Amino acid sequence: MTQTVQSGTSGTREDSIELLGLVAQLQLEAFTRSAEDSAVAPTLEQRLALSRFAADAVGRRDRVMDRIVEVGGDPLAAMAHFDHVLDDFDLRTSPSTWWERLLTSYVGYGVADDFCRIAAARLDESSRALVLDVLDDHSHADLAVAEIAAAGADDEVLVARLALWGRRLGGEALGVVQALLGSRPALLRIAAGTDVYIEAGEASGKLFGELTAEHTHRMGRLGLTA
Amino acid sequence: MTQTVQSGTSGTREDSIELLGLVAQLQLEAFTRSAEDSAVAPTLEQRLALSRFAADAVGRRDRVMDRIVEVGGDPLAAMAHFDHVLDDFDLRTSPSTWWERLLTSYVGYGVADDFCRIAAARLDESSRALVLDVLDDHSHADLAVAEIAAAGADDEVLVARLALWGRRLGGEALGVVQALLGSRPALLRIAAGTDVYIEAGEASGKLFGELTAEHTHRMGRLGLTA
Repeated sequence: MTQTVQSGTSGTREDSIELLGLVAQLQLEAFTRSAEDSAVAPTLEQRLALSRFAADAVGRRDRVMDRIVEVGGDPLAAMAHFDHVLDDFDLRTSPSTWWERLLTSYVGYGVADDFCRIAAARLDESSRALVLDVLDDHSHADLAVAEIAAAGADDEVLVARLALWGRRLGGEALGVVQALLGSRPALLRIAAGTDVYIEAGEASGKLFGELTAEHTHRMGRLGLTA
Repeated sequence: MTQTVQSGTSGTREDSIELLGLVAQLQLEAFTRSAEDSAVAPTLEQRLALSRFAADAVGRRDRVMDRIVEVGGDPLAAMAHFDHVLDDFDLRTSPSTWWERLLTSYVGYGVADDFCRIAAARLDESSRALVLDVLDDHSHADLAVAEIAAAGADDEVLVARLALWGRRLGGEALGVVQALLGSRPALLRIAAGTDVYIEAGEASGKLFGELTAEHTHRMGRLGLTA
């Protein structure tokens, strides 16, 4: 358990497996969520688009699982640490309209992905490149932005309600990251290695400041005040 | 509306578009169902396997949609005829256990696929080859068979309950086919062209006899009495 193998100039093999496991699990959750969104989407075009996002998430997840094998890890064990990682977020943020649903996926996965991008700085070079590539698919974000911007163009009430919803989502998503760092010491170590993100054994304000800034930027793309 | 273009030696372009639209819609429904099954599967391995089946269904559906374009049709319009085609089946067959759920997918899609295979005989050669190829993926069936056989090996009560559930599913699935033929005259015409499946403007006993025989064979693979 104490054996760590240096892999490249930064981070350990265990660190890579830990973060790759989280990324793989998040892609599995993204698959499930996109599929659920597809099942209840108002139009056939949306159902088709969302089903393709779901299928793409499966492909991305399998690439990450393959990488875990390459660095000598067990992908199932690595993912199992994060099983149901977003269940609590989902329970607390059950959307009541289609627009809230779109926003929930966009914001929830946005914050989680941002954390993974920051933590990826600590990984070996190949794993880091893979994580950044996997997280660089903006097709779901583009759909959410286009649909919410169109719907909100002449509906101030909707915009105000979604802005409120988005603020709540942001808070809940940051809570997920905080809970993750509290329950997985390895993740905290990885985040600590990337910069001055840890103070006195806890995630610092800097980490949450950056995640909040990205969330604000994301809401701005939708024309919503964070 | 009365213009029909002969395409190959059998069937018309309209017939091909009609059946391809049904197959594409069934693959979309199969995606949604596999994703739902994945979301509630007991183990991570099952979640992964079912998510891959779902992703494969998206790929198959897109191939069928491409074929609709090739023969000059509008894939969205073709699929829209069959939107929510299995909603009634789903409402009537809500599974109460994991095994019932696996069996529902296996039997429900089995019967629908059998109907499409029979009707495909009427299509132009390329469309027929595509439909048969698309419906030739047995990976979900293999999972259902392996898991149900293993679970039932030393549980006679489970086997008896699943056999009962399977008989009900078979009846409901045949009801879906009957309703489809009643609501889509073009499908009835396609089925009529394949053999002596139509009598006095209605689907004959022969069609349902073949579908029932296939259902019985399918149940037999699970060690269940149909």
